[in-house]
Amino acid sequence: MPGVILVSDNTAGVHPDVLAAIAAANEGHAPSYGQDETTARAHELFRAHFGEHAETVLAVTGTAANVIALAAMVQPYDAVLCAETAHVFADECNAPERFIGARLTAVRTPDGRITPQQVAAFAAGGGPPHAARPRAVSIAQPTELGTVYSLAELRAIADAAHEHGLLLHVDGARLANAAVALGTGLAEAASGADVVCVGGTKNGALAADAVVFLDPALAEPRRYLHKQAMQLLSKARFTSAQFVALLSGELWRTNAENANRAASRLAEVLTGISGTGPALPVQTNAVFADLPGHVVAALDGDGSRPGEGGLVRFMTAFDTTGADIERFGTALHAAFTG
Amino acid sequence: MPGVILVSDNTAGVHPDVLAAIAAANEGHAPSYGQDETTARAHELFRAHFGEHAETVLAVTGTAANVIALAAMVQPYDAVLCAETAHVFADECNAPERFIGARLTAVRTPDGRITPQQVAAFAAGGGPPHAARPRAVSIAQPTELGTVYSLAELRAIADAAHEHGLLLHVDGARLANAAVALGTGLAEAASGADVVCVGGTKNGALAADAVVFLDPALAEPRRYLHKQAMQLLSKARFTSAQFVALLSGELWRTNAENANRAASRLAEVLTGISGTGPALPVQTNAVFADLPGHVVAALDGDGSRPGEGGLVRFMTAFDTTGADIERFGTALHAAFTG
Amino acid sequence: MPGVILVSDNTAGVHPDVLAAIAAANEGHAPSYGQDETTARAHELFRAHFGEHAETVLAVTGTAANVIALAAMVQPYDAVLCAETAHVFADECNAPERFIGARLTAVRTPDGRITPQQVAAFAAGGGPPHAARPRAVSIAQPTELGTVYSLAELRAIADAAHEHGLLLHVDGARLANAAVALGTGLAEAASGADVVCVGGTKNGALAADAVVFLDPALAEPRRYLHKQAMQLLSKARFTSAQFVALLSGELWRTNAENANRAASRLAEVLTGISGTGPALPVQTNAVFADLPGHVVAALDGDGSRPGEGGLVRFMTAFDTTGADIERFGTALHAAFTG
Amino acid sequence: MPGVILVSDNTAGVHPDVLAAIAAANEGHAPSYGQDETTARAHELFRAHFGEHAETVLAVTGTAANVIALAAMVQPYDAVLCAETAHVFADECNAPERFIGARLTAVRTPDGRITPQQVAAFAAGGGPPHAARPRAVSIAQPTELGTVYSLAELRAIADAAHEHGLLLHVDGARLANAAVALGTGLAEAASGADVVCVGGTKNGALAADAVVFLDPALAEPRRYLHKQAMQLLSKARFTSAQFVALLSGELWRTNAENANRAASRLAEVLTGISGTGPALPVQTNAVFADLPGHVVAALDGDGSRPGEGGLVRFMTAFDTTGADIERFGTALHAAFTG
Repeated sequence: MPGVILVSDNTAGVHPDVLAAIAAANEGHAPSYGQDETTARAHELFRAHFGEHAETVLAVTGTAANVIALAAMVQPYDAVLCAETAHVFADECNAPERFIGARLTAVRTPDGRITPQQVAAFAAGGGPPHAARPRAVSIAQPTELGTVYSLAELRAIADAAHEHGLLLHVDGARLANAAVALGTGLAEAASGADVVCVGGTKNGALAADAVVFLDPALAEPRRYLHKQAMQLLSKARFTSAQFVALLSGELWRTNAENANRAASRLAEVLTGISGTGPALPVQTNAVFADLPGHVVAALDGDGSRPGEGGLVRFMTAFDTTGADIERFGTALHAAFTG
Repeated sequence: MPGVILVSDNTAGVHPDVLAAIAAANEGHAPSYGQDETTARAHELFRAHFGEHAETVLAVTGTAANVIALAAMVQPYDAVLCAETAHVFADECNAPERFIGARLTAVRTPDGRITPQQVAAFAAGGGPPHAARPRAVSIAQPTELGTVYSLAELRAIADAAHEHGLLLHVDGARLANAAVALGTGLAEAASGADVVCVGGTKNGALAADAVVFLDPALAEPRRYLHKQAMQLLSKARFTSAQFVALLSGELWRTNAENANRAASRLAEVLTGISGTGPALPVQTNAVFADLPGHVVAALDGDGSRPGEGGLVRFMTAFDTTGADIERFGTALHAAFTG
Repeated sequence: MPGVILVSDNTAGVHPDVLAAIAAANEGHAPSYGQDETTARAHELFRAHFGEHAETVLAVTGTAANVIALAAMVQPYDAVLCAETAHVFADECNAPERFIGARLTAVRTPDGRITPQQVAAFAAGGGPPHAARPRAVSIAQPTELGTVYSLAELRAIADAAHEHGLLLHVDGARLANAAVALGTGLAEAASGADVVCVGGTKNGALAADAVVFLDPALAEPRRYLHKQAMQLLSKARFTSAQFVALLSGELWRTNAENANRAASRLAEVLTGISGTGPALPVQTNAVFADLPGHVVAALDGDGSRPGEGGLVRFMTAFDTTGADIERFGTALHAAFTG
Repeated sequence: MPGVILVSDNTAGVHPDVLAAIAAANEGHAPSYGQDETTARAHELFRAHFGEHAETVLAVTGTAANVIALAAMVQPYDAVLCAETAHVFADECNAPERFIGARLTAVRTPDGRITPQQVAAFAAGGGPPHAARPRAVSIAQPTELGTVYSLAELRAIADAAHEHGLLLHVDGARLANAAVALGTGLAEAASGADVVCVGGTKNGALAADAVVFLDPALAEPRRYLHKQAMQLLSKARFTSAQFVALLSGELWRTNAENANRAASRLAEVLTGISGTGPALPVQTNAVFADLPGHVVAALDGDGSRPGEGGLVRFMTAFDTTGADIERFGTALHAAFTG
């Protein structure tokens, strides 16, 4: 299935330890709607990672986590700065607009990362009565292009935002991969954020994304937003169990390490075969390659990729093996020579 | 834990067969966002149950299923008739208003069931420019009070709605329990509906609710609504697997049968001890009792119920055992005599 | 035109002084979007009436004024208590739900006035995660049934609201009529309110309604809401001029006095002819009468009233004359005897 | 007042004939909410201009007209293509997002006009489940930069839209100026549109904008949208009277002719003094000039323009006189030489 393998990190299944944690949570009856012990444990783990004032709600999609986060940060008369490539702008089918009513102000970037200068320009624009109030900046760490904000860059963005009275949202759908790239913990990889979304699904979970509020004032409406965003599961313990499995030990890290390492290896294979390196720096688990149309078409056995050439994304996952990379190399070689 | 046992059918865990199906779906990689084989199989099963034109999207909460259903049926300038006790009105924290913008017109009922006369009165009211357009009727089958619309009543409601140009939504969060009560299949228990929500969670699933569109025109925007309602899971196969487990054989039925049977037994125990029968007909898995304040307080070991007396709900689940009922009887007896 | 006369106070035209003020404002060019001198003068007049901290935005419909007011007061996860007869609930075609997303919790009242007990019950209900947050109380002064909250009742409602952490909105679409009934100024007739809507249209204006924010914190987003609610006119001076005409002298009062006085006279005529008095106390410019169907049908020359009998509303306006009342009496007499 | 004169065409007042029509409509009582004869006459005039199937609702701001139009055309899961300079995107403070929930997809243009190629590219993008459905194209005629789509260009845009299943919205806040530029009637200047907004305010009215539905299916919900957008005035006759004044004879045309002519003259004066012509073609009543910072600062007596240099907009109105242009010339000359 070359069309499927390495297309995305969400074609992977669930890590066995996560599945085991779900099964273990299935002991007897438990209070519903998050009043259970497993959920209490998950919240505790987020506090252990993000600080004692962190408040968390759990969602089952990254889109929901982003929408809850932004809904707590902005009003319908506000604007949120983001990159044109941001998931929240490009891949959430207007869910933010529909649920919140606010404007997403998307700017062009070379590699998915926005700059303090863009933040300053955004803050300087807008205002009543004709334009929305610049209110928040949303960045992805890592970006949708696999690049990572360094700690200094994070600080610069956060400072730029806060100096101008803007809030900072970090979409960390793959935050573990960024943390591994930076050699830090999860919280440090999102430092400066007022609200951070932490993705579990791409890190080996079944369906688990967290919204972690680092500013208690922003956390206040979280229980209402949790329900309104249709993310309050009655059997909440099973989502919580997934984060308990990932965060109570090192599973979050080893899973991300495997994915990042596989991407590096994939980049080497790509360079060796195509003669040119990746189109963007490979810092996490995404490899972007500028490939000719016939190569893309040949790789895409099942039509799930458009055969037009141009920038193609390959992604590794927590469970990508050496054999997967080898198979990729073989297919790529055949595509080039076929 | 008397405060927890029998408080709701969502304090139960996951049926072992459902958990096994999730584990079985975890074989290798699979296309994400519902393009996988397990999801195709789930859709096929819904067609087998609801007819070949049925189109389905899967959600993880009953609130989400209801919101998706209504969003496909009404515009922001429309009104939806429902009972005051309806989940969609009383327990969804404005999610319908926020996501759709429409009005929920709630009417009083003796037992959760609305009548064709109420439908006709609703259809006759409203209209431009000062009032919303009456556009849909939302009923729950069974109702939130555990009562069931008979097939004749369903037909009468559906006819009343359709004659007046209204659409019919059936919230079937516990549809299996209604079907068992009626001795029918799932589709027949919701007959006349234009869109029906089928709950899996209270029927033994982990988190699985389906929106089944029986009118192809209403089904058209379903993929957009699925995503906007933040219910499109990347690893969709694991939600689908739960419905495959429930619907491919008789699990949906045996689970509901167990719950309904336990409720009947519970009602007998209640009558025996309290001297008076349930406050409402026990047709599915809910038993409402009018209990004195001191009894409620005594039953509620952990404070999760207000000790005020009045109508108290007990619910049985797919896994309620004879021992659970016996324990309930002992606790109730102690509460009365203690 | 018996079908038209006295049907509503908005079938009246514009008071000559208001029209003259519009014409006077039409001198040369002026800054647009409310930066003009006439608008500055209108804001000053609202401060003169409501206190130096009052902030105002002007709208052209009462619905818009109510929506702006509530949008500044509540979030989409909030609930607003109001009477079932409230304009905001019964006559605004879901505009509040669509624009704000919040729930309007409507309660039954004998005469349009809600009680401190209803406020307390509302405050005690709701809450996360399943129900919206009780956040505001919206009353109409006078009510849509023409009744008036006494100053003591106003204080009791405001105290009940504020004690429970709720905000108080006063829909004063006919506030001048209430003030005249109470023998007070406009502000006193809405005392206790956090935000009050002051209607000009029914008081002799062409189209002018004000939202007066008495709490500076609530006033903060007003310029954004003004624009988003599509009420920021480019040639704002012409709306402002209407309020300047009404509020700079005693026009608001004399107009309301005439309407109230005419209603009293109408009530007398009604009692004399029908033999029974009005169905509700006549305190402002509305008279409700319980009339037989044939009388209603006979009165309604042009079909603009349903001929079903029951509660019928007659309204007087700033320009209702003795001759109008006499004509009404003649028509009513004919209807009864015809 | 150099800072005010020629800054915009909405600093002008009301044409005397329009004011006279308002006064004339103030005869006696009339049915409210648009059931009056003046409103019937206005609707008739729009049918005379736009065809017998045209249905109209009247608004008081251009923003409201655009929002009503788009709300009738798209769903919250849809995207609307527009220019980055479009009023609907740049100057309506998220009102479209808040009211509708849809995405505005803004593209760069040299002069405010989008191309059939941009329409085709837009239609080819998007789609479920991750992106909104491309559903409508919104163009301004004339554009916010004063340029005009030729009849051939209009046809090409409309064909491109309709071929791809997209609807065409024309924001005609200054449609009269475009019609004069093209030498056509109003309808022809918006030919191909499914819904067109016709601005009266900038054409000499007090506050009057029309939404004209040319496709009866799109017109269906107009009465609900009219109310929900808070544009249904109780004394509707006074808005209607303004359009009656403009459209029953040639006032719409002579007003626009004067404005366009004044802009041509202004451009000549500008070229003579600055030595360079306007930065964009002067086709209607806007003149854009690329002026040095010190000139802009000198022109702006009252700070209402930022003194940064760059593209500066001057606008003429229905009442701009030769003396106004002369005064502008004097001020500009002084600014250059001062």
